[in-house]
Amino acid sequence: MTKVPTSFLLTDLYQLAMMQAYHEAGETGTAVFEFFVRRLPAGRNFLVAAGLEQALGFLENLRPNDDELAWLADSGHFSRDLIDRLRTFRFTGDVHAMPEGTVFFPDEPILRVTAPLPEAQYVETRLINLLHFQTLIASKAARMVQVAGGRTLVDFGLRRAHGAEAGLLAARASYISGFSGSANVLAEQMFGVPAFGTMAHSFVQAFDNEPAAFEAFAKARPERLVLLIDTYDTEEGARQVVALAPKLRKLGIEVSAVRLDSGDLGALAKSVREILDAGGLSNVTIFASGGLDETKIAHLLAGGAPIDGFGVGTSLTTSSDAPALDCAYKLQEYAGQARRKRSEGKATWPGRKQVWRRVDGAGTMVGDIVTTEDDPQEGKPLLEPVMRDGHRLAPPTSLTAIRAYAAEQIESLPEDLRGLEKAPPYEVRISDSLRALAAEVDRFIDRAMAPP
Amino acid sequence: MTKVPTSFLLTDLYQLAMMQAYHEAGETGTAVFEFFVRRLPAGRNFLVAAGLEQALGFLENLRPNDDELAWLADSGHFSRDLIDRLRTFRFTGDVHAMPEGTVFFPDEPILRVTAPLPEAQYVETRLINLLHFQTLIASKAARMVQVAGGRTLVDFGLRRAHGAEAGLLAARASYISGFSGSANVLAEQMFGVPAFGTMAHSFVQAFDNEPAAFEAFAKARPERLVLLIDTYDTEEGARQVVALAPKLRKLGIEVSAVRLDSGDLGALAKSVREILDAGGLSNVTIFASGGLDETKIAHLLAGGAPIDGFGVGTSLTTSSDAPALDCAYKLQEYAGQARRKRSEGKATWPGRKQVWRRVDGAGTMVGDIVTTEDDPQEGKPLLEPVMRDGHRLAPPTSLTAIRAYAAEQIESLPEDLRGLEKAPPYEVRISDSLRALAAEVDRFIDRAMAPP
Repeated sequence: MTKVPTSFLLTDLYQLAMMQAYHEAGETGTAVFEFFVRRLPAGRNFLVAAGLEQALGFLENLRPNDDELAWLADSGHFSRDLIDRLRTFRFTGDVHAMPEGTVFFPDEPILRVTAPLPEAQYVETRLINLLHFQTLIASKAARMVQVAGGRTLVDFGLRRAHGAEAGLLAARASYISGFSGSANVLAEQMFGVPAFGTMAHSFVQAFDNEPAAFEAFAKARPERLVLLIDTYDTEEGARQVVALAPKLRKLGIEVSAVRLDSGDLGALAKSVREILDAGGLSNVTIFASGGLDETKIAHLLAGGAPIDGFGVGTSLTTSSDAPALDCAYKLQEYAGQARRKRSEGKATWPGRKQVWRRVDGAGTMVGDIVTTEDDPQEGKPLLEPVMRDGHRLAPPTSLTAIRAYAAEQIESLPEDLRGLEKAPPYEVRISDSLRALAAEVDRFIDRAMAPP
Repeated sequence: MTKVPTSFLLTDLYQLAMMQAYHEAGETGTAVFEFFVRRLPAGRNFLVAAGLEQALGFLENLRPNDDELAWLADSGHFSRDLIDRLRTFRFTGDVHAMPEGTVFFPDEPILRVTAPLPEAQYVETRLINLLHFQTLIASKAARMVQVAGGRTLVDFGLRRAHGAEAGLLAARASYISGFSGSANVLAEQMFGVPAFGTMAHSFVQAFDNEPAAFEAFAKARPERLVLLIDTYDTEEGARQVVALAPKLRKLGIEVSAVRLDSGDLGALAKSVREILDAGGLSNVTIFASGGLDETKIAHLLAGGAPIDGFGVGTSLTTSSDAPALDCAYKLQEYAGQARRKRSEGKATWPGRKQVWRRVDGAGTMVGDIVTTEDDPQEGKPLLEPVMRDGHRLAPPTSLTAIRAYAAEQIESLPEDLRGLEKAPPYEVRISDSLRALAAEVDRFIDRAMAPP
């Protein structure tokens, strides 16, 4: 199961208002919209496309149910004609997109919708909602994976994610970018994201003392046993683990890891490592969590903290440094005529576009060029047809395959772009064909805006 | 309908792992957990409690369905005994909480769960997920309402909210704190949050020129007509509205408002106001949107911008300056014994608590005191019983009533706390009774941690 529950009413009122007006005005020609990001968040070097699978699932299954139709009819917001049209509404358009896991940059469309205007318009709100969030999280997670240098990273963020769907889709998006898994059980059921879990402080507190809690947990959950040792005093907790280990070993139970969740994680990891090693537990790994983000992880590792894995919560699932991307889904062509918005600071490149990527002999990305759709360039075109007449052109790509592709993509970034520091921007050129089209559209707009 | 869809599997793996271990260890006594916020976000002065309605809906309906049970059994994560217990699992505990819309501060619990330990533990993840997010958004929205000084505020944030549920619950939470409504249609259907809508740039672009687009929209949607005038040139757009108005009037259609969505909104609002007034359209109001937050709204109004209403999107639904609260759901008592976590930087006050609020003769809040549950103080106790044995003690409070109560609450804040600037903190005292209990628990922990 990869479909997230939704409602036909999960949209902005104006989408339905415009649908009614488009029909009344007879403006039902073919429209082309593209989704793109306008700017990188401060300090960021690249983005990772994600959310296409849920976007296609949304488009495929888009139709109001009887309850929704009845509510719309009773709401007083809409004409009888619109309600009648909605009874048979479905998405009949085409979609082109970059595969999930593709690295991309501002001004590069990652998804194009070609459909009758009322359909292409209506889908805007939820399409943005789905593409924006997973792209946001996949892009954030990729930074953490880069600094973790192969260590385990687990998503702990459900509790402070913005609602159920955010927690669920953040688990998927971070797994795409190289996380090992998530604490979220539903993400394993729905997407096959491996579920990880340890124990909470409340478990330790519920027992008379820490060793009693550790022993009870070990007996009940002997596999991949991780003990949380910071409820009262982290170093003392490590000593309790050393003292308990022989007893557990007699029961056939090995401690797999300890978890630290508070205090100076770098200093504590070192002293805990010493305590464990001195106690013959050099195979027990150290897992750290508690307010971590990519900067703190980088700092811990640069300081030589002997930490083997990290649980990352809030900073991941809220993309705390940049909780939103400046993104848009814009009309690029209508009824065969390229269109362009010229609002101050928000001007867009018109027409149906393609993005071409060149790599060097070592496979490293060396530059992209954004063109009109029909202007072939050196390199690989990144936008592919994925839906025609409302039907998918291929079955969903497995999450494992998407994850492997994302790893390749991120690996092919120039090294300075993979670091946490802001690097000189990657080259994204606008082709002459696209500049010429923009000039042509501007002449059209000037005529349209001439005083009546 | 006020229930949001959920899944029994929407939890952290460790909740189910601990449930299994609690049962195996026989630790099924009564546990008391409390939800509270540890710290105010930087620059903030107060918080607004929200999300209780969805939290109670979650607890009331908490049981795995057959598919979920089958998946859990097949997952290999859990014992047969746990799966059997889950077949009849439901939440049988008590809940005390502050009513939604209550203003509160760090260290003050806003919800307490009293239930058998495996139940009280299991519900942690989703309870935090639900209470955290709406509290986050209600607290952010309250700041915007304060600076808007009675002007209309509409939630435009669904597209960049973190998923479907975030968009839906942000509409509810911002309405509680005084927003006039939301663009989100589903929020009107589910919660009765009034839906607002205008038109998009793509609508304007789909027509040959702006007047043709305005006229088509006006004919289709004559009620509360709002025209978006910045697609090509804002001032020119305003002149087009003036030119079109007599023609619309002959059709019995009055322009209600114009919307600006880009550029220097303050300067443009002034010139648009002049153009409209000179054109005899002084009744047409000006609505502004585009990257707004409370600081920008305050700045626009301080500069005398003649703006009558604001659409606020991303900054509201992501709480962009503080996309998460430092909050927790912690074990405070187990089997009749108060508990306390002492992790560095995360120590908590133990036991079942009450919060008492004093107001002065004018109704202004003058100070809170946090006590053990049984230590009455001057003022009003803020935590009330809301659920007993898993059943609500009263039907859901209407959203209108919650909104009115929130307005009263915010109005009763000292004036400096209502401003955008960081004010000296509101007084929240910890009672002697609570300090004595903490000392007692510390002696218990010291005994528990004594070397074996």
